[in-house]
Amino acid sequence: MAEGSDRFLRACRRQRVDTTPVWIMRQAGRYLPQYREVRRNAGSFLALCKTPELACRVTLQPIDLLGVDAAILFSDILIPLQAMGMSLDFVEGEGPVLDRVRDTADLNRLRIPVPEEELPFVAEAVSLIRRELSGKVPLIGFCGAPFTLACYALEGGGTKDFKRILGWLYGNPEGYGRLMDLLCETVIVSLRAQVAAGVQAVQLFDTWAGVLSRRLYRDHALPWVRKVFAGLRDLEVPLILYVNGCAPFLEDMAGSGADVLSVDWRVSLAEAQERTRGRVALQGNLDPRALYAPASALRREILAVLAEAPASGHIFNLGHGVLPDTPVEAVQALVETVHEAGRGGDLRL
Amino acid sequence: MAEGSDRFLRACRRQRVDTTPVWIMRQAGRYLPQYREVRRNAGSFLALCKTPELACRVTLQPIDLLGVDAAILFSDILIPLQAMGMSLDFVEGEGPVLDRVRDTADLNRLRIPVPEEELPFVAEAVSLIRRELSGKVPLIGFCGAPFTLACYALEGGGTKDFKRILGWLYGNPEGYGRLMDLLCETVIVSLRAQVAAGVQAVQLFDTWAGVLSRRLYRDHALPWVRKVFAGLRDLEVPLILYVNGCAPFLEDMAGSGADVLSVDWRVSLAEAQERTRGRVALQGNLDPRALYAPASALRREILAVLAEAPASGHIFNLGHGVLPDTPVEAVQALVETVHEAGRGGDLRL
Repeated sequence: MAEGSDRFLRACRRQRVDTTPVWIMRQAGRYLPQYREVRRNAGSFLALCKTPELACRVTLQPIDLLGVDAAILFSDILIPLQAMGMSLDFVEGEGPVLDRVRDTADLNRLRIPVPEEELPFVAEAVSLIRRELSGKVPLIGFCGAPFTLACYALEGGGTKDFKRILGWLYGNPEGYGRLMDLLCETVIVSLRAQVAAGVQAVQLFDTWAGVLSRRLYRDHALPWVRKVFAGLRDLEVPLILYVNGCAPFLEDMAGSGADVLSVDWRVSLAEAQERTRGRVALQGNLDPRALYAPASALRREILAVLAEAPASGHIFNLGHGVLPDTPVEAVQALVETVHEAGRGGDLRL
Repeated sequence: MAEGSDRFLRACRRQRVDTTPVWIMRQAGRYLPQYREVRRNAGSFLALCKTPELACRVTLQPIDLLGVDAAILFSDILIPLQAMGMSLDFVEGEGPVLDRVRDTADLNRLRIPVPEEELPFVAEAVSLIRRELSGKVPLIGFCGAPFTLACYALEGGGTKDFKRILGWLYGNPEGYGRLMDLLCETVIVSLRAQVAAGVQAVQLFDTWAGVLSRRLYRDHALPWVRKVFAGLRDLEVPLILYVNGCAPFLEDMAGSGADVLSVDWRVSLAEAQERTRGRVALQGNLDPRALYAPASALRREILAVLAEAPASGHIFNLGHGVLPDTPVEAVQALVETVHEAGRGGDLRL
């Protein structure tokens, strides 16, 4: 196996690497002209997610175009909700729209999906991608975490104020618990199916958990993350946990069963390392907006992240998904800079 | 002076109090029917801010209706930008719209306002309010902090992605520094004028600084906060610093010259106290959405905040402004619960 191909998995396990591995959240996405072309021809975003050949094609695009050290399955975190029985639509310019769960009785509409029946296209895409990659780089699978999926299920789409989810959490703890249990099982079966089909690591996106107080996070989000990771432990693939706005929760996340914490840009990796006491590898954490900066400023920001990163067990990434109008050359420069600096190049700022 | 009247100022100075003082960010606002009536008759939001009699009336409403321990001047953080020479409009349902600063040359449009000339209505409102309050509770003044004002000046209004401000910060450090210097001077003269007119404490709202990494916060926002506080120190009024999403910055904020840190709900007051080592008083930090919860859950959340609060030097508040459709009775219950529990009532959860 060539050096480059196992860099990412080795770093997840905090083993020595030849240089810092790097991949980019949403690396297969709208900022790439090649992606936009496939997306246009697919008809709809959901068709793109659900057609294995197309999902495979866009998954592979950033591997050659950017030289990243891992591929991540092209899909959407809401697809498991659709498989549970919720209607899902993507409205141009508005984002996802779901027929939201309105009350406890509505929970009876939801079922834990059987991946072979409701999500066959996921396993097919994974097999196809693994075949096409033929060991070049590993493939990451992913799922939304129960709390973040509960936000979508209760709010019916994106939200700024999270009033419905917090309304359930405060006012209907029993219904909240039932929903979280259902989502937790769904996440476990979905991720187990992805691993069975061939993904070599999984990332759990608890993107919205940063809206919670630390106390609520510990009581109402973290327990289900723990359950998910416990339900995957026997699979022996690295487990990555991402929260946007994770600063208040780092200690809690380190005790979740995750092997890797994916950290947003607000907190320094040095602080994250100190607070997690080397129990986990760290992934992150460049501000996605640094990719709009002039080349010299971008380079300075990348080196500043590397200077704060742990000596082993670091996977370079952004602190959040790459933004849709990011210049492709900036992302290419990022990958080159990380690889070059991680090889022992000039790390001075 | 009656016990209740100096509770807030004493807590700011970490002196003994008879019970925990409480006020609510945006306590004079849309959730109050009495406010909505005055607002309707004022014609426009800006007219309400700029007519001293009306600003006075809405400032006083929550004092009697809620029984809070401080009044806060009714105004808007964008009014100093208008006084600097930027056009400002509030578009219904869209929020503020400014003719944004597009390039470094545009900075020449901006001037440091002379409060007596460009902001006379502020001092008039302050005098009126102080007279009407006649010592019942103290009056807080406020201003946006330089970074948060720079966001508005460069983005031209609200934003989700903060691309322009970060574009300046990364790509035009000289222009960024000039803008921040101008804003810093404006904030100092505005707040000095408020104190001269009679406000007894000031709060600096760096609401949006939470979008920055800790490194950028220390290099590109905090230095100007320090300068503002240094420029107010001789006035001997308590200085309060608010950042939404302050968890990564608590140590830095404690060294800013602030007497009080206003903390959002994501981080616990116990952690904030530990990390600031008792150098400052703490204000906060109930999640505003707890006010939608059933009465028993709201009470539990309030007591949980109080249980984590320091024994002295705590001012109860929300972690962010009260939301527009919050039930008034919930806010009233909050004030009562805090006062009762702070008097040595039942603090068990």
